[in-house]
Amino acid sequence: MFFYREDLINMIVPDKPDPAAAKVLQETLGGQFGEMRTMMQFFFQSSNFRGKATQYRDLLRGVFLEELSHIELVQQTINQLLTGAGAEGAGDAGIDGAPLDEAIKHANPHHYIMGAQSSLPVDAAGNPWLGNYVYDHGNLVSNLLDNVVLESTGVLQKSRIYEMSTNKAFRETLGFLIVRDNAHQNAFAKALETLGVNWGKIFPIPNYDINKYPECQKYIDLGFHNAQFNFRLDNTRIAEIYSGQSPSRNGGELKVTDPPQGHPLPFMPELPNEHSPGLYDLNA
Amino acid sequence: MFFYREDLINMIVPDKPDPAAAKVLQETLGGQFGEMRTMMQFFFQSSNFRGKATQYRDLLRGVFLEELSHIELVQQTINQLLTGAGAEGAGDAGIDGAPLDEAIKHANPHHYIMGAQSSLPVDAAGNPWLGNYVYDHGNLVSNLLDNVVLESTGVLQKSRIYEMSTNKAFRETLGFLIVRDNAHQNAFAKALETLGVNWGKIFPIPNYDINKYPECQKYIDLGFHNAQFNFRLDNTRIAEIYSGQSPSRNGGELKVTDPPQGHPLPFMPELPNEHSPGLYDLNA
Amino acid sequence: MFFYREDLINMIVPDKPDPAAAKVLQETLGGQFGEMRTMMQFFFQSSNFRGKATQYRDLLRGVFLEELSHIELVQQTINQLLTGAGAEGAGDAGIDGAPLDEAIKHANPHHYIMGAQSSLPVDAAGNPWLGNYVYDHGNLVSNLLDNVVLESTGVLQKSRIYEMSTNKAFRETLGFLIVRDNAHQNAFAKALETLGVNWGKIFPIPNYDINKYPECQKYIDLGFHNAQFNFRLDNTRIAEIYSGQSPSRNGGELKVTDPPQGHPLPFMPELPNEHSPGLYDLNA
Amino acid sequence: MFFYREDLINMIVPDKPDPAAAKVLQETLGGQFGEMRTMMQFFFQSSNFRGKATQYRDLLRGVFLEELSHIELVQQTINQLLTGAGAEGAGDAGIDGAPLDEAIKHANPHHYIMGAQSSLPVDAAGNPWLGNYVYDHGNLVSNLLDNVVLESTGVLQKSRIYEMSTNKAFRETLGFLIVRDNAHQNAFAKALETLGVNWGKIFPIPNYDINKYPECQKYIDLGFHNAQFNFRLDNTRIAEIYSGQSPSRNGGELKVTDPPQGHPLPFMPELPNEHSPGLYDLNA
Amino acid sequence: MFFYREDLINMIVPDKPDPAAAKVLQETLGGQFGEMRTMMQFFFQSSNFRGKATQYRDLLRGVFLEELSHIELVQQTINQLLTGAGAEGAGDAGIDGAPLDEAIKHANPHHYIMGAQSSLPVDAAGNPWLGNYVYDHGNLVSNLLDNVVLESTGVLQKSRIYEMSTNKAFRETLGFLIVRDNAHQNAFAKALETLGVNWGKIFPIPNYDINKYPECQKYIDLGFHNAQFNFRLDNTRIAEIYSGQSPSRNGGELKVTDPPQGHPLPFMPELPNEHSPGLYDLNA
Amino acid sequence: MFFYREDLINMIVPDKPDPAAAKVLQETLGGQFGEMRTMMQFFFQSSNFRGKATQYRDLLRGVFLEELSHIELVQQTINQLLTGAGAEGAGDAGIDGAPLDEAIKHANPHHYIMGAQSSLPVDAAGNPWLGNYVYDHGNLVSNLLDNVVLESTGVLQKSRIYEMSTNKAFRETLGFLIVRDNAHQNAFAKALETLGVNWGKIFPIPNYDINKYPECQKYIDLGFHNAQFNFRLDNTRIAEIYSGQSPSRNGGELKVTDPPQGHPLPFMPELPNEHSPGLYDLNA
Repeated sequence: MFFYREDLINMIVPDKPDPAAAKVLQETLGGQFGEMRTMMQFFFQSSNFRGKATQYRDLLRGVFLEELSHIELVQQTINQLLTGAGAEGAGDAGIDGAPLDEAIKHANPHHYIMGAQSSLPVDAAGNPWLGNYVYDHGNLVSNLLDNVVLESTGVLQKSRIYEMSTNKAFRETLGFLIVRDNAHQNAFAKALETLGVNWGKIFPIPNYDINKYPECQKYIDLGFHNAQFNFRLDNTRIAEIYSGQSPSRNGGELKVTDPPQGHPLPFMPELPNEHSPGLYDLNA
Repeated sequence: MFFYREDLINMIVPDKPDPAAAKVLQETLGGQFGEMRTMMQFFFQSSNFRGKATQYRDLLRGVFLEELSHIELVQQTINQLLTGAGAEGAGDAGIDGAPLDEAIKHANPHHYIMGAQSSLPVDAAGNPWLGNYVYDHGNLVSNLLDNVVLESTGVLQKSRIYEMSTNKAFRETLGFLIVRDNAHQNAFAKALETLGVNWGKIFPIPNYDINKYPECQKYIDLGFHNAQFNFRLDNTRIAEIYSGQSPSRNGGELKVTDPPQGHPLPFMPELPNEHSPGLYDLNA
Repeated sequence: MFFYREDLINMIVPDKPDPAAAKVLQETLGGQFGEMRTMMQFFFQSSNFRGKATQYRDLLRGVFLEELSHIELVQQTINQLLTGAGAEGAGDAGIDGAPLDEAIKHANPHHYIMGAQSSLPVDAAGNPWLGNYVYDHGNLVSNLLDNVVLESTGVLQKSRIYEMSTNKAFRETLGFLIVRDNAHQNAFAKALETLGVNWGKIFPIPNYDINKYPECQKYIDLGFHNAQFNFRLDNTRIAEIYSGQSPSRNGGELKVTDPPQGHPLPFMPELPNEHSPGLYDLNA
Repeated sequence: MFFYREDLINMIVPDKPDPAAAKVLQETLGGQFGEMRTMMQFFFQSSNFRGKATQYRDLLRGVFLEELSHIELVQQTINQLLTGAGAEGAGDAGIDGAPLDEAIKHANPHHYIMGAQSSLPVDAAGNPWLGNYVYDHGNLVSNLLDNVVLESTGVLQKSRIYEMSTNKAFRETLGFLIVRDNAHQNAFAKALETLGVNWGKIFPIPNYDINKYPECQKYIDLGFHNAQFNFRLDNTRIAEIYSGQSPSRNGGELKVTDPPQGHPLPFMPELPNEHSPGLYDLNA
Repeated sequence: MFFYREDLINMIVPDKPDPAAAKVLQETLGGQFGEMRTMMQFFFQSSNFRGKATQYRDLLRGVFLEELSHIELVQQTINQLLTGAGAEGAGDAGIDGAPLDEAIKHANPHHYIMGAQSSLPVDAAGNPWLGNYVYDHGNLVSNLLDNVVLESTGVLQKSRIYEMSTNKAFRETLGFLIVRDNAHQNAFAKALETLGVNWGKIFPIPNYDINKYPECQKYIDLGFHNAQFNFRLDNTRIAEIYSGQSPSRNGGELKVTDPPQGHPLPFMPELPNEHSPGLYDLNA
Repeated sequence: MFFYREDLINMIVPDKPDPAAAKVLQETLGGQFGEMRTMMQFFFQSSNFRGKATQYRDLLRGVFLEELSHIELVQQTINQLLTGAGAEGAGDAGIDGAPLDEAIKHANPHHYIMGAQSSLPVDAAGNPWLGNYVYDHGNLVSNLLDNVVLESTGVLQKSRIYEMSTNKAFRETLGFLIVRDNAHQNAFAKALETLGVNWGKIFPIPNYDINKYPECQKYIDLGFHNAQFNFRLDNTRIAEIYSGQSPSRNGGELKVTDPPQGHPLPFMPELPNEHSPGLYDLNA
């Protein structure tokens, strides 16, 4: 069973709206290599796990649990990038102009049509998330290798998306997630080490330069690249795998730790002209 | 942030394999009105909620949390229905016959190709889950009405799927979920009552006859049709909505309660010839 | 604007339920070359038509109008093939057995889950209809050639589906539609003749043997293979194209005629255990 | 059977081309909650209806018939928004520049590639229409609730799209359709009233301010928000449901009326360089 | 079996990056009527061919083989249009700005996220290629007619895409492919002539004016519009069909010839900040 | 440029029709991990390759070329499994029965509707192939790891499909492809060895027992598991990577060799009632 505490896994840094940034950040939420896929992939791999080597099952499930919080983090970041976009009066009046005319020029128009300026289960090109993104081969070695590819692609894509906007909310979330993808890359690579693979110097993939992503530094300093957060309310065998020397050439010791301190969920203001939530209508 | 305890929300009743039942039960997992959709729909609706009436946000999130456990329950039920299917020797030898020849005749062949006899994010016709199943209109009234439709359709479909096999694992899971869909139907209908709607006698939709689903009776006796399980580790305002008289003509008092006592996850045996998990290969 | 009279364009011949036949007949409704595609393709081609040669626009729209009635005919045929399927008690009881267990073995399970034993916008493999089936190239010659391919494929596929069941409702509908596809093939081929093409002996495609499809004979005798039914309440220029010698080697004179005499829509009985329509529930 | 008269259900107000407006208006045609979905949903629900309460079947079919005319209206509006877009010479020469270079910057490029500047069966993000948008649950209560959601979402989305351009053709069509969605919302809500529901003050959803949509006023004055147009050439039982007090807090009397006076279909000029229709080529 | 020589079938003319042009040129690669579809369609039609009239099989396979080289040509053209896009520093630094901010404004963002500024199996709207684009009806006449439509649509679409950018690499590739589509249109039309069709003056479709596409002239002078390149290492019967008078009103003699002289594949520079290919990372 | 010789890469062993086997073998052709995906994935990865380390580009392209021949081999195998299915008279008469009634019971009905009993670009569940199956991350390490997963999954799935029929044509093709997937697994694993990875004993994935697949033995004896066939007509640098000790614990020396001796393409008989190819119709 799953439990929840209203604490965001990282902060949302305030900055102005940026619908074009929201559009590309959707890749990190509903893209083929985004958080919805990692969450569902590890959910299925752990539920479908066979046999007694449950330390691997615990590892898969442990990463799955964190991905739920990542989805929430990206949803909130997108919401902040969208809220308040449009010319003055958008979401409040429509007679005297077309306040969303400019806003949608480089936006995903569905952000302004489907919901009231909020996140969607789609990618940066507007394609809906697809169940066949999820790979569960039913074979541990194959799954672990694929998970390494998935987490590596996560870093690769985020390092490219990072170049698309200087918005602070956008970059802080990307920076945090790059470091966490790195930790999860380590998790699956380490699991393969327990099966005899010696990785040489290929990790991390890609070999990103921490100096180019100043947001990442504080998370590295906190050791987040070598930590596995523990979201279990009962025992877990993760530490049988996630411990000892990091498989990455950056080195360090892998550790299972408590989750980070939570951050408050941002308050999302009403948008009367978007009829969201619309309760005031009924009190009129 | 999300937390987990290895406790299944309901029991898996032992019975023999039934791949045809597993195929149709996929509708309840990855179908257009299945648990993956309800989970994701309420996840997006609660994360994207606007304004100060957070009792509604808490209600949406509360149901979302339970849907995570429903996904896990259906995955495990499907896994039990699949495991051990095939003629003798299936999953262990291939020379002297084609042990899966019969097994796949009424099965989804992907159950035996993609993974090692285990659940998939697809529906009963084998179509992968799609992100556009998720509706979040950004308007509370519209969302609540749609959620009523979604939970009603959940009961409708399960009452039809129930007629497709007498397998006990299959029917117990369906019976439990029918009662819970009923409770969630009550939750969204009650929320609309707080906005002025008087439902008359239309609930529950459909007006199913409890005597036809003997598995349901014990859950009714436990009051599960009028209970909202609380999976929050902090405070929640759900009870401001989920309390008082049930909107259903079956009556009763709505109550927020603790989650049910957990059930152990079934052990899934290795399947050597399916190469799952495949670790013995490496120790050979 | 569009108008309607409750008259089916052809009769539904009574016969017993046959869910396997219903499954494959879906190709004719929601398949890539089915009636939903032809209807939408000619709808878009006629609405998007450019220029003054409106006799071609009238021809495209004329065929489009008939396709609406074809959709209705196939829906009703599928409904009859589905209604009453299942062991005794299906749609009325679920305790003492699994009355749909056998029924779904060769059925599309969605026929019994989504609705109450009724038609769906999907093909014979259960794939939902897709907007990109519709071709409108914005060029008359290209569109006409494609429409010839579409109508020819219609006959081809129906001649193959015909071999899949001896059910009379199934075969009567296929027989009628084969002859009408033939007439529409003539319509588009004739339009290309007005642009200078001399077809030689390639029509009809394929060169089916009327003796193999006894249901077709009476429609041939009525001249339906060389008739364009006129569903316009105002004037139309179709006859400027659809007249004179048939482009088919079977010969004959093309004629614009009144629609055939209508047939009553079959009555669909309630299915209490499928909760359809479910009104009795509310009167209990 | 279906009949047609070449009369558009509302006027197309002349204005200049606006490909960005055409792109977002596609949502109203081929989007998940657009006219193609409402048409097909009510088509299937009425064809698949079970039992003797045919007044509900007539209501479903009645709304379906009007949606056919809505599709035609939106197609024509999009065509006008597209025709003539591009720098001078677009559709007439290609040597000396790239006349569509600017035009496609905020357009759906398929509007200029697939056809000759004309409408497509896709949504505002370019996704093709999907058969699984159609919901027919086989249960009248569930279908009616879902139809209320669908028509409400129609108004919600149109009120947001309205803010995206001041183009007069664009806004007139949106204004007309907002009022008609309102009438159809009333139709399905009223049908639920006959089953015992008392809606309080939640309708219309959303509670839009008529003063913000000046185009709507004249249609309200004509009573179009409380009228059900009758497109039947034979008898219909719609008025057994669609009559009496409106379920909306705006009040008024529901009435079945004749369709509105028709409007001429706009003439679409040839586009030689787009090769549409291309007939002049053959006469050269 | 298939063999390869590293020779591009046409030259890539150097010009500056143009991500908006790359986006629309994707239609020619992964669109519904692009080179991936023609390749796969003719691959399936030739592999699935029945009977002894193998001159038709050889024709289908002959065109299929050339389409492989067309895919390669369009991939390389798109790669050149993408490489080096972005503000100074793109692909090399991310701290001091967002070098891709402008670049993605009119681009397919996946070009910069999925790979390192390179081609994708998608269309101009970002939709992934779909297997059901491929038509193989199993009937030669129907297939040939459809192939004529497909090649005609190829020319139509390319003549429209041509108007979207003056980029020289973009236009040279389009010009070459327009002429080759013309040759393939002739191939399938000629095959239908052998079955008795007299085309009159409808070919080529559309009747494009060679003077509007200066890039085409040299290929016409080389006779490429009436040539079928032979990529077989053994014998082929193509010339039994592809010979004699062209079916097009432009006239000329059809000839099977050797493939054109090859062109070197462009060198694609490394993009360090895109981590492509990333080998330098490992040597650090 | 690409060249062809009419030689099948392996033999088709004669056996009787088996439509159920054809259905599941489609996974190997058009499935998410089938030959169409490997072909397209390596095509894009090689065309999009950046930098001077062209030995890797040659390796990617070398495997891509072989996948073209694999597609052809699986198409021909499926065609043989389908041809002649049905009761006596199928494909020749339809009056006296429904000869395909039984045949389609466990078949993909599209095999008998779309084409004339021949292969399709779909998977074992009937889903069409999708462009987003193709992964090209633009980073060599990530691509190589993913290619290892892809080839491993190829073996995994084929070992499971193998259990589904004893048909000899079916099993011979699977046996050959298992061994070739193994060779390609070695190719990508070896490439990663050149970058420093020491694989220990995890290869091959899965650790299949050769004795269970008697068809494989002769290919192992021929050394096909450690051979890379060379389909280049010019020079290639593959041997710089594909040489030396195999990364698999089965050992052996990797070698670039000539392609295997070709096998004749099977003759596919006409199917008159399926109208394939239909030429006899025109000569009647």
